[in-house]
Amino acid sequence: MKNYVIVVAGGKGLRMGGDIPKQFLPVKGKPVLMRTLEAFHACDAQLELILVLPADQQAYWKELCSTCHFTLPHRIADGGETRFHSVRNGLALVDEEGLVGVHDGVRPFVSQEVIRNCYREAAQKEAVIPVVEVVETLRRLEESGSETVPRSSYRLVQTPQVFTVSLLKQAYAQPYSPMFTDDASVVEAAGHAVHLIPGNRENIKLTTPFDLKVAEVLA
Amino acid sequence: MKNYVIVVAGGKGLRMGGDIPKQFLPVKGKPVLMRTLEAFHACDAQLELILVLPADQQAYWKELCSTCHFTLPHRIADGGETRFHSVRNGLALVDEEGLVGVHDGVRPFVSQEVIRNCYREAAQKEAVIPVVEVVETLRRLEESGSETVPRSSYRLVQTPQVFTVSLLKQAYAQPYSPMFTDDASVVEAAGHAVHLIPGNRENIKLTTPFDLKVAEVLA
Repeated sequence: MKNYVIVVAGGKGLRMGGDIPKQFLPVKGKPVLMRTLEAFHACDAQLELILVLPADQQAYWKELCSTCHFTLPHRIADGGETRFHSVRNGLALVDEEGLVGVHDGVRPFVSQEVIRNCYREAAQKEAVIPVVEVVETLRRLEESGSETVPRSSYRLVQTPQVFTVSLLKQAYAQPYSPMFTDDASVVEAAGHAVHLIPGNRENIKLTTPFDLKVAEVLA
Repeated sequence: MKNYVIVVAGGKGLRMGGDIPKQFLPVKGKPVLMRTLEAFHACDAQLELILVLPADQQAYWKELCSTCHFTLPHRIADGGETRFHSVRNGLALVDEEGLVGVHDGVRPFVSQEVIRNCYREAAQKEAVIPVVEVVETLRRLEESGSETVPRSSYRLVQTPQVFTVSLLKQAYAQPYSPMFTDDASVVEAAGHAVHLIPGNRENIKLTTPFDLKVAEVLA
C-alpha cells in the first residue's frame, strides 16, 4: 500500500512563445510548482510525488530545480492534450494499491489540514473532494435572460481530489468526454459517488495576474 | 434628473462588542468605506452619495471622517433589519427621477469602467448588474449527493446594481421576502428583467481576514 499525489501542471507550452506558464513563476522568490510539491511532502513525507508536465517544459523545469536547489524526489509524466489525458499519463506511473490524489499545480496554498482530511476520508469513502461555499449571489443563465439560484445549494470545487487507486484507474479507463471537467466528474461517469468535505478558501487556483498578487500575500 | 448611489454598510453593530465592522477597517491607511465612496465620486462628481449605516455606527463614522479629514459630501440613512430594509431607507432619500445604483460598502475595488458602464447601460435597459464568470468547477447539492453543473451557465453577481429611480422605488414598495438576496432579485420579483454586463474580478466583497490581506495588495 502506497499513497500518491499527481500534480498536474498545464499552461501553454514554452515553445508557443508568450508568457512563462504560471506554475513556473516565483511567489516570494520560489516557483509556484515547488511550493505545491512541498505542501504535499510536508503533510506526508512518504507520499509519492508525480508531476505531470508538457514534454516541452520538462527541460526548463529540470534547469529550474537545479537553479533553485530543489531536491524533493518526484517522477515526471508527460502532459496530454487535455487535463483528462494528463491525469491518465500520471496514473500510468502509479504502480501499487493505495490512495491517489490529483492536484492542480497552480494551487500552492492548499492547507495541511485539507490534504490530511482528504486522504483520511478517502480511505473510508473511496472518493473525496474539497469544496467551499459560494459567497456571492449566483445566477443561472437561461435561454431568455437569467435567474438567481440559491447559492447555499452550490459549492465551488477545489483539489486535491483523492481516490482509491483502483477506483481512479477504473474511471480513467473510460473514453474521454468533454464533460470531464475534473476527476470527480470522471469518477461519477464511471458510476461512483463522490464525497464532499470542506476545503480552505486560500486554496486558490493561480490563473490571472490578480491571483499572483494575492499569492504574494498568502506566501 | 439626478443620479444617485446608495452605499450599503452592514456589519455587526458597534454596541454588540466584538470586532470593528469591516467597512471601517483601514486598507493602506484609509477606511474601506471612504475608498468605496471615493470610487463613485471619482467616476462622476455630480453623483449624489447616500450612505446607509446602522444607527449605532453613525457617531463613530462621523468621528472617523473628522479624524481622516474625509470631506466628501454624503447623506446618511439608517440601516434596517435586513439589507432590503437598509436599501429601502436609503431610497427614501432619493428625491428626483434619474438613475440609482446600490453598492456594497465593502466593495471598494469596483473599477471606474464598471461603474460607468452600469450607469450608461441602465439609462437604456433600466436594470443593470455586473457579473463575473465562475472560474472553478461548480457543483449543485442534491437531496442525495451532488452533481457537477456547467459553470459556463452561471455568473457571480457583484455591485453596483443600477436602475431607474422609478423602477427601483416601485420594486422596493413590495413587502419583504427572504428570497431577496440582492436588488436584482427584488426588481425581478416586481416583474422586470435585469440586464447583465461584465464586472471586474478585483471587485471583491471584503468579508474575511483573507479578503483584507488581498485588499492590501489591491489598494
